[in-house]
Amino acid sequence: MAILLVNDDGIYAPGLYALAKALRDKYEVVIVAPDREQSAVGHAITLAEPLRIYEIHQDGSFYGYAVSGTPADCVKLAIRVILDRPPDLLISGINQGANVGASLIYSGTVSAATEGTMLMIPSIAVSLDTHRSDANFDDAAQIAVQIAEKVMKFGLPGGVFLNVNVPNLPMSSIKGFKITRQATTYFDDFFERRIDPQGRTYYWMSGTMVEVDRGEDSDLMALKHGYVSITPVKYDLTARQFISTIESWFSAE
Amino acid sequence: MAILLVNDDGIYAPGLYALAKALRDKYEVVIVAPDREQSAVGHAITLAEPLRIYEIHQDGSFYGYAVSGTPADCVKLAIRVILDRPPDLLISGINQGANVGASLIYSGTVSAATEGTMLMIPSIAVSLDTHRSDANFDDAAQIAVQIAEKVMKFGLPGGVFLNVNVPNLPMSSIKGFKITRQATTYFDDFFERRIDPQGRTYYWMSGTMVEVDRGEDSDLMALKHGYVSITPVKYDLTARQFISTIESWFSAE
Repeated sequence: MAILLVNDDGIYAPGLYALAKALRDKYEVVIVAPDREQSAVGHAITLAEPLRIYEIHQDGSFYGYAVSGTPADCVKLAIRVILDRPPDLLISGINQGANVGASLIYSGTVSAATEGTMLMIPSIAVSLDTHRSDANFDDAAQIAVQIAEKVMKFGLPGGVFLNVNVPNLPMSSIKGFKITRQATTYFDDFFERRIDPQGRTYYWMSGTMVEVDRGEDSDLMALKHGYVSITPVKYDLTARQFISTIESWFSAE
Repeated sequence: MAILLVNDDGIYAPGLYALAKALRDKYEVVIVAPDREQSAVGHAITLAEPLRIYEIHQDGSFYGYAVSGTPADCVKLAIRVILDRPPDLLISGINQGANVGASLIYSGTVSAATEGTMLMIPSIAVSLDTHRSDANFDDAAQIAVQIAEKVMKFGLPGGVFLNVNVPNLPMSSIKGFKITRQATTYFDDFFERRIDPQGRTYYWMSGTMVEVDRGEDSDLMALKHGYVSITPVKYDLTARQFISTIESWFSAE
């Protein structure tokens, strides 16, 4: 079994390292990750600039391929250029910080799993719910391996991947797995206005996620209550239930 | 009625200009667009760098605000910083080139409409199916206005926007409006390997869209057959029909 690992925190991120370590004994692991942090890049791909691939060594041995692009670029380059045959599984992560609710739209971690799914590779995105530098990625990696083995055993339907969020708790305090839906949330963006040394105005974006719904079946609430959240995600965006309504707008004339 | 115009081809793009011209007599129009082309950026937002806003003049009068960021950044800045009150409608485009099938995932044009929808603004993405420099944006703009007026009249449900694709035909040859679904397609990416003057390898990405389905109800086929394609699009990505299956993976033990 060959597993492709990607992320958006960059090839030197500890979450990726922990995941590779947890998988390497049992599986063939290939790392293809951005050469620097690429958070919040969404599903950007690089068409207007050339891409480069660098071989990265760590502790005296080959670690993985760094790419001068986005997470989606990494997946495409891995499958089209680097690997001889498609991987059996793609895991994106482990991201530092949860990807729930509206974050799925912005997340580079999630976009790598979307790209894998579009290229017909069973894919999982994994995020750990903390931004602390002492994040416990090793327990999260063990959980990622458990879910990966379920995917390898049962398979995923076409066009669907799993978005996994792990609470930042010791393994013994995690309540179990919960299959969830994406919470309805949005970002209350804040732009801080500053003046640069040349006297010109610039803005820094920040934001807090606003929880529109607090349903117990959402990714957000499962995570808050100490569960590993697993959301089946698709990239077919059609709002089918609304097709006939819009048809009526035009037939009314 | 105040209409916010955004795009991903940049503030100087002719598709944006044609749209503004078609709307300005009847509506208050505010343009907030990237200061350069931002195609295929997906739903990227700019968190690691500051953003700047420039006032752009054309033909001796104020034209709009250029932003040093992505289409999603433009929408956030427009609503949080530039405008005194939320716009009644957001139109993203008119993009040069269709956004159907898998392109919705990569498109900056579509991401601006997603962002508007997340911020509760009725939103429309509009694309013209040509990359030719003599594209007829004026007819496409008239069609965009017709659809915008339907949206202002009937309203859109929460969480849904319209993705509109216009064939590059004279108005008299367009067969009408068709309400469609996103086609299932993927990109057969090709990476052209080159050597730079320093002897180092780099890759250029290109790709052709592969049509997995040829259903007559898809955006792709409607456009091919000379219809204006209108797809209702949502950003809730949960694959609900698969939740119980995954639940069974864990309860089986």
